[in-house]
Amino acid sequence: MLLHLCSWPEVEDYLGRSRGIIFPIGSTEQHGPTGLIGTDAICAEVVAKGVGEATDALVGPTINVGMALHHLSFPGSVSLRPSTLIALIQDYVKPLARHGFERFYFINGHGGNVASLKAAFSETYAAIADANLPNAGRIRCKVANWYQAKGVVELADKLYGNQEGSHATPSEVALTQFIYPEAIKTAPLSPQVAPTGRSIYNPTDFRAFYADGRMGSNPDLATPEHGKAFYETAVQSLSDGYLSFIKEV
Amino acid sequence: MLLHLCSWPEVEDYLGRSRGIIFPIGSTEQHGPTGLIGTDAICAEVVAKGVGEATDALVGPTINVGMALHHLSFPGSVSLRPSTLIALIQDYVKPLARHGFERFYFINGHGGNVASLKAAFSETYAAIADANLPNAGRIRCKVANWYQAKGVVELADKLYGNQEGSHATPSEVALTQFIYPEAIKTAPLSPQVAPTGRSIYNPTDFRAFYADGRMGSNPDLATPEHGKAFYETAVQSLSDGYLSFIKEV
Amino acid sequence: MLLHLCSWPEVEDYLGRSRGIIFPIGSTEQHGPTGLIGTDAICAEVVAKGVGEATDALVGPTINVGMALHHLSFPGSVSLRPSTLIALIQDYVKPLARHGFERFYFINGHGGNVASLKAAFSETYAAIADANLPNAGRIRCKVANWYQAKGVVELADKLYGNQEGSHATPSEVALTQFIYPEAIKTAPLSPQVAPTGRSIYNPTDFRAFYADGRMGSNPDLATPEHGKAFYETAVQSLSDGYLSFIKEV
Amino acid sequence: MLLHLCSWPEVEDYLGRSRGIIFPIGSTEQHGPTGLIGTDAICAEVVAKGVGEATDALVGPTINVGMALHHLSFPGSVSLRPSTLIALIQDYVKPLARHGFERFYFINGHGGNVASLKAAFSETYAAIADANLPNAGRIRCKVANWYQAKGVVELADKLYGNQEGSHATPSEVALTQFIYPEAIKTAPLSPQVAPTGRSIYNPTDFRAFYADGRMGSNPDLATPEHGKAFYETAVQSLSDGYLSFIKEV
Amino acid sequence: MLLHLCSWPEVEDYLGRSRGIIFPIGSTEQHGPTGLIGTDAICAEVVAKGVGEATDALVGPTINVGMALHHLSFPGSVSLRPSTLIALIQDYVKPLARHGFERFYFINGHGGNVASLKAAFSETYAAIADANLPNAGRIRCKVANWYQAKGVVELADKLYGNQEGSHATPSEVALTQFIYPEAIKTAPLSPQVAPTGRSIYNPTDFRAFYADGRMGSNPDLATPEHGKAFYETAVQSLSDGYLSFIKEV
Amino acid sequence: MLLHLCSWPEVEDYLGRSRGIIFPIGSTEQHGPTGLIGTDAICAEVVAKGVGEATDALVGPTINVGMALHHLSFPGSVSLRPSTLIALIQDYVKPLARHGFERFYFINGHGGNVASLKAAFSETYAAIADANLPNAGRIRCKVANWYQAKGVVELADKLYGNQEGSHATPSEVALTQFIYPEAIKTAPLSPQVAPTGRSIYNPTDFRAFYADGRMGSNPDLATPEHGKAFYETAVQSLSDGYLSFIKEV
Repeated sequence: MLLHLCSWPEVEDYLGRSRGIIFPIGSTEQHGPTGLIGTDAICAEVVAKGVGEATDALVGPTINVGMALHHLSFPGSVSLRPSTLIALIQDYVKPLARHGFERFYFINGHGGNVASLKAAFSETYAAIADANLPNAGRIRCKVANWYQAKGVVELADKLYGNQEGSHATPSEVALTQFIYPEAIKTAPLSPQVAPTGRSIYNPTDFRAFYADGRMGSNPDLATPEHGKAFYETAVQSLSDGYLSFIKEV
Repeated sequence: MLLHLCSWPEVEDYLGRSRGIIFPIGSTEQHGPTGLIGTDAICAEVVAKGVGEATDALVGPTINVGMALHHLSFPGSVSLRPSTLIALIQDYVKPLARHGFERFYFINGHGGNVASLKAAFSETYAAIADANLPNAGRIRCKVANWYQAKGVVELADKLYGNQEGSHATPSEVALTQFIYPEAIKTAPLSPQVAPTGRSIYNPTDFRAFYADGRMGSNPDLATPEHGKAFYETAVQSLSDGYLSFIKEV
Repeated sequence: MLLHLCSWPEVEDYLGRSRGIIFPIGSTEQHGPTGLIGTDAICAEVVAKGVGEATDALVGPTINVGMALHHLSFPGSVSLRPSTLIALIQDYVKPLARHGFERFYFINGHGGNVASLKAAFSETYAAIADANLPNAGRIRCKVANWYQAKGVVELADKLYGNQEGSHATPSEVALTQFIYPEAIKTAPLSPQVAPTGRSIYNPTDFRAFYADGRMGSNPDLATPEHGKAFYETAVQSLSDGYLSFIKEV
Repeated sequence: MLLHLCSWPEVEDYLGRSRGIIFPIGSTEQHGPTGLIGTDAICAEVVAKGVGEATDALVGPTINVGMALHHLSFPGSVSLRPSTLIALIQDYVKPLARHGFERFYFINGHGGNVASLKAAFSETYAAIADANLPNAGRIRCKVANWYQAKGVVELADKLYGNQEGSHATPSEVALTQFIYPEAIKTAPLSPQVAPTGRSIYNPTDFRAFYADGRMGSNPDLATPEHGKAFYETAVQSLSDGYLSFIKEV
Repeated sequence: MLLHLCSWPEVEDYLGRSRGIIFPIGSTEQHGPTGLIGTDAICAEVVAKGVGEATDALVGPTINVGMALHHLSFPGSVSLRPSTLIALIQDYVKPLARHGFERFYFINGHGGNVASLKAAFSETYAAIADANLPNAGRIRCKVANWYQAKGVVELADKLYGNQEGSHATPSEVALTQFIYPEAIKTAPLSPQVAPTGRSIYNPTDFRAFYADGRMGSNPDLATPEHGKAFYETAVQSLSDGYLSFIKEV
Repeated sequence: MLLHLCSWPEVEDYLGRSRGIIFPIGSTEQHGPTGLIGTDAICAEVVAKGVGEATDALVGPTINVGMALHHLSFPGSVSLRPSTLIALIQDYVKPLARHGFERFYFINGHGGNVASLKAAFSETYAAIADANLPNAGRIRCKVANWYQAKGVVELADKLYGNQEGSHATPSEVALTQFIYPEAIKTAPLSPQVAPTGRSIYNPTDFRAFYADGRMGSNPDLATPEHGKAFYETAVQSLSDGYLSFIKEV
């Protein structure tokens, strides 16, 4: 059930039976020579829609641009500053909390979002307390990373071993290939498996070390069929996660 | 050409032939008893994609949540505060300006965004000047409202006359029906044509006057076929607009 | 009745009979080779005082510096950033709302203020709701541009036709000549009628196209007598506007 | 020389002979049962104009609303938050610094502004350094309180002794009487000399202790003739101060 | 070498031989019925001093208050909002980067700080890039949690097994006992081992589930002797970590 | 009684007998060729601890970095921007006010903090009022400068006369020598007594005039014995000040 395809009376009805809502959050950032700039948003969105269908949950619009400041040395990458993302999350959560929503489940496609999201949740609780919302003590936000969901990590390990890496990974590339087979790209990868092991600092430093944008990965291993398996595994796992979250006392 | 379906080297190539980029911006807000909460985002996105195809322009991800504070008394409506939207626009434009983009064309589906967008453009120019970007003097942002595009207003007037109204209009509803025929909704409208004429103030006041969320409109007049006509008209008109914008000396 | 010339018990008395207040808002920005940098503030202030007298309304102090970032390439121009203006409007409105004021009428002399003002109104309503002011649902802010008031546009058109332009216009220059005849300036204008038609982007771009600061205008047509007529027309028109606003249910 | 009555070429000329500018800053706050709400702005403005005439200095528009949060329990009082005032001062100083101004002299009428102004100056220097303005190291801001100017304190002491107090003082009331004799007000003062000695905390506490808004003062002692003497003394003293400031190496 | 005990010429000398600096960061928050409110700051500070001595590194002053919003339902707990911490880290790093420091090592005592710190690092890099610092591309910040340092986790596991828990842990209590034996507290713990397993949301929810503030821990197991062992292990491990960090190419 | 060495139940007990808390606030900034960078924090902290012991008051953790933007041209100096300090003070005071604290006494070691602290207090009262804390009207914050305490100024004058100066003074250096005799430094001072009389503007200007960082002082006059006398005098004086503050009706 997509918020964007509901009318407001349908949302009012939904609130009669559930206090939960899902928001996909991705990023708009380089994913190596062959990965899509929208990879993280595409993956988060499709998994969130799947979870929404499986659990009869309302799914809000995708947060397409996340916290990707370290990728900004590559053309086409965009990022919110963490302080902007903190303000944005408040702006999403506060009015919905006034409407009666109390459980906010963010299905996330980008590791770089996690820290800022957690910071945003804390600041949002404080803002809601300051505004004296009657349900302030019941508001809960959670981030769930599809790429770390139960089963997904195991599948990636089985399929790709130590060529999964941590950015522009074959698993996320596979999932985008499943969704957009028409957008599968090829380009020479050199080295075939990207370097790894360097911490992430500023964008200049990032590009100096991770020259083509990948981190430890060999995205050539990805196939659309793998993507289908990742999709199904992630949806199953995060559906369980969402249901646990909204049932939590 | 969708930014989300490009790799970063493709963006680099694109910059060799164009400095322009299009961002759809909508809203997540009530559109009356039968309109979709995502109406403004859906319309802006589909028109932007059409313009992108017609003009070989790069189209960024949709800004799904806009400035809709006055709609927040209706469940499911979400809004950025204007100051958040100002920060967000800076965060979108500044890195892309560093990459070489210089013309930012925002195809907009929501009247409530216009003021905050214009404020954001001004603040963004100032931030870019303060950061001493070499192309600071060449950065230009423009908002183009699809619902006010040449031909669209005339078509709405012809089809709906004074039942077009200004919110949850049959024209925008028609466009969403064309895109999502499976999400066409019916509900009794009372009165059939919504009231009009009251200025917009705070959300409590808004709902007191515009009780079901519509403003002056009769969305029952909408059909998917109308939507197709609006789509084609808007794409044609804004394609011209975009091409003029990027050619402007 | 000027707030600055009242004592606080007089304001308390006033609140017993009215909930309305008027704020003039102008700008401090270049107005071409012969226009005054204070034009917009001077015009807004004098019209607001006239409206205050005609309607027994309280008139607050003039907001002398507005949103004029695009004029900053001309010496002597000053501007608030939109985000600063948003904060400022909150700071003006919130305490007065606590005192019992509920209708805030901003008489405006500068087109560049409008977008930021509207954004500010929205953000102010939200801040007041968050602070749980008991009259939050009754607070209303409105911007009224004297230069677009009923009768003013017609008069400008009659007197100046297509030499009115849109910045450093003969109508606003005339009004300042009426107020400050001792400050009438002359300088060669070249071309006599300024260029027009270019959108407003960043200040560098603005000055490159609008080389002496004027937009489409021929301020040499202005006379103090015209100014008197503009003054009287604007006061009449905005007095009606203010009275409608405070009577609005 | 008033900035508001100049054209931009006149400012350009002025910059050929001086780098200094004066800004009056006041407040919009209660001044007891008989004092004007605009007292601090009125006094700062008139003194600044006098100093401008005496020293051939450019005088910018008055900052009418200052930092008066502690007065907000009295109707008609308005205040910027300190953080807003900090943003505002940056917005005033930064563009003028780009134009070539380097000495900013704030003639102040309100004790409550001083802390926030000093904070603002510091933050402004930092912002200008971050923006890499070529003259960043030469920008200097100074606040000069007319009520503490050389000669003014002595005159107040001679005329009023310990009935001068520290808010709604006879000296400032006298100065407004000199400027606006038509706005002289009378009302019973009880006690005749207001209480004193309590520190300033929040606005609730302020009004609980300083019940009619005055602090230690007996404004009934004021006369327009005194006001004239204060005016002349302040202008003389701050003219010296301004000239020293702009000559300082 | 403590920054607070240096003169500025000594810092200038230090910069001739190193570009690294260490900042301890803790928190001021409840640590159960017997743990010290300053636990996280005390631990971070003492470990940082030990690392500074072992590696000849400069150690800055302790950030005593961190991000502990979820603890605020317990008296005496204080917290920066994440957005404040982000601003603070910028303010610490930017001037030191101008002086020539390039490696910032934050020794952290509080899990709740990690997300906000990482967000802060990203935002700081962006601010430094916007300010065009010449060494912007070389600035690197890293957070090192003493309680997760190599050897520390193993020692805690060996000493406390599954009674270590995750807040008010015996390991951190032991370290404070080693430093402040005079401040060892006793109180009945009920249950002896605190509950565990609930995610952290808002402070009301936190206290409802974690009634005495502990999470999964049995701090009665702590001894000052254990604390000494934790201290030595952490210093050894983080000294290695710091040296690797500053040597990193 | 140090907050950092208390458990939360001890704070709860304390609130049963007192509503007051003390926070030391210092700075991390150059203090001339021989003064410690931590001078202001060290002095504020030790005096605050002494006052806490003498008055049975709770003492919070030291704010080690203050508002020292004007010192940033000297290596090792760090500063919060005023707007950051304003946010920080809110973050300290608001949760403690929720717990029941109502009197916040900031023992300060740095003149540069005073303006920003006062601004912060005002903004904090406003934020607490907006959040509708039940004790909003009773929250009071006060800054007490140890170096201006009764007896301290007299002692400095007696010991050093006009060689006390205003930065890197012998009195503050003496106090640090008393606390850290092992960190007494010597270096040639040239001139022996630092220059004086120049206002403080931006950091470039500051260092140009105050070349070694001192202002008007001769810190060679300091001795640890003097420091002991300053300590005792300041503790006595500020203990009286604190007790008056918390007894104030």
